[in-house]
Amino acid sequence: MQRWKLTIEYDGTPYMGWQRQHHGPSVQQTIEDALTKFTEISDPCLNVAGRTDAGVHAVGQVAHIDIEKPLTAREMQNATNHHMGYAPIAILKAEAVDNSFHARFDAKKRYYRYRITCNHQAPPKLDAMRSWHIRNDLDIEAMRAGALHLLGHHDFSSFRAAQCQSDKPQRTIDDISISEFTDPLRPGRQICIDVAAKSFLHHQIRNFAGSLKAVGEGRLAADDIKTILETRDRTKADMTAPAHGLYFVRVDY
Amino acid sequence: MQRWKLTIEYDGTPYMGWQRQHHGPSVQQTIEDALTKFTEISDPCLNVAGRTDAGVHAVGQVAHIDIEKPLTAREMQNATNHHMGYAPIAILKAEAVDNSFHARFDAKKRYYRYRITCNHQAPPKLDAMRSWHIRNDLDIEAMRAGALHLLGHHDFSSFRAAQCQSDKPQRTIDDISISEFTDPLRPGRQICIDVAAKSFLHHQIRNFAGSLKAVGEGRLAADDIKTILETRDRTKADMTAPAHGLYFVRVDY
Repeated sequence: MQRWKLTIEYDGTPYMGWQRQHHGPSVQQTIEDALTKFTEISDPCLNVAGRTDAGVHAVGQVAHIDIEKPLTAREMQNATNHHMGYAPIAILKAEAVDNSFHARFDAKKRYYRYRITCNHQAPPKLDAMRSWHIRNDLDIEAMRAGALHLLGHHDFSSFRAAQCQSDKPQRTIDDISISEFTDPLRPGRQICIDVAAKSFLHHQIRNFAGSLKAVGEGRLAADDIKTILETRDRTKADMTAPAHGLYFVRVDY
Repeated sequence: MQRWKLTIEYDGTPYMGWQRQHHGPSVQQTIEDALTKFTEISDPCLNVAGRTDAGVHAVGQVAHIDIEKPLTAREMQNATNHHMGYAPIAILKAEAVDNSFHARFDAKKRYYRYRITCNHQAPPKLDAMRSWHIRNDLDIEAMRAGALHLLGHHDFSSFRAAQCQSDKPQRTIDDISISEFTDPLRPGRQICIDVAAKSFLHHQIRNFAGSLKAVGEGRLAADDIKTILETRDRTKADMTAPAHGLYFVRVDY
């Protein structure tokens, strides 16, 4: 029996999310179906670092699985990719790891990026379902000032989904930064919100992005983020940003 | 009658190319169909700077058209985008221009970018149909040395498609440069070949990209590009790179 650590890229658009569901296709099921084509696995099997929601993308998701059949790392990667065919999921790396490794419980830090395309009248087409489209410009300095209030250890009840299953609303945000990049192939102004923490509440980053966008628009002041945080009341924060702007970037172990 | 200059983005994947065809959907037809929903146009009507092939993308294509109905620039842009619905085409800008402006004949310089993702075992998924995927790494310095031979005025018969309709094989390449960029959301090594010229032969940039990739792999030496150019024989150059890595970037008038 060999434990494998898989690093995974996916376009979340056609999936109900990472987790296997009865009512539609999931990333987990697609990978597990491919694995069963060339090896035997127990069911359910993949343990994942971040159970992303429907429509959320990943470029460095990590999951582990135990496989009986002896395989090289290259065989494990290529056979899984081969059997997924045209599904928008790829195994970027397969590494044989010790049986003590756990993709979810051993994660020390998780990194997410939220992408916004603003100051752009037309809907993005080459980047459709890859970035949150805001027609007007956003004040990035105000957003940075607002984001500072989210750093550190807080009760994040104001930025937590009603259906969140965590037993406590406290989390520690290790890093949050807002950057801009230019790419001649991406029309409009490109903004990224990068957030890192050991773990997150349900919808926490999308709720951060929704309220920081309101700060960028001037509908909220930067210091309103502090006030909202202190109320511990989800109804005081702004909208949940759409799933298609969010990317699971990587995990530190 | 008002002449309009339209700047256009499109994902070329589902189209037979820019030009209206009998056997499938085209970018031209999709835009013209949208225009006829809110104004009267003569048929055929759109004059374009660069008639891109099937699968080629654009982020700054330019076309012009004459419209009888009085419209503001914002109305012209938004109504066209509205009537294109979910088609992966967007009008980025609509500008009222003088009747003497011609999108094709007045173009002084056209800019194309060819994207390659290399040193990456798995097929790109978030960037599927957006970049040419090469599993092995490429020697970018060798590619740069090879590209230098393509600069300037030459007979480009070796890099010209058999079906090219131009009456002469000479062109002047004003700029060709090869750059790298990193993007945490784009796994693998990202290489861009940027080429600028007043005009191009059919498949010229994709033929450049195919032979420069062979130089990057070490199958051709950088100086072989010079030799290939001098033979004026298409069979001496390497393969035509696939359409989905090519982007029409912009036009100078």
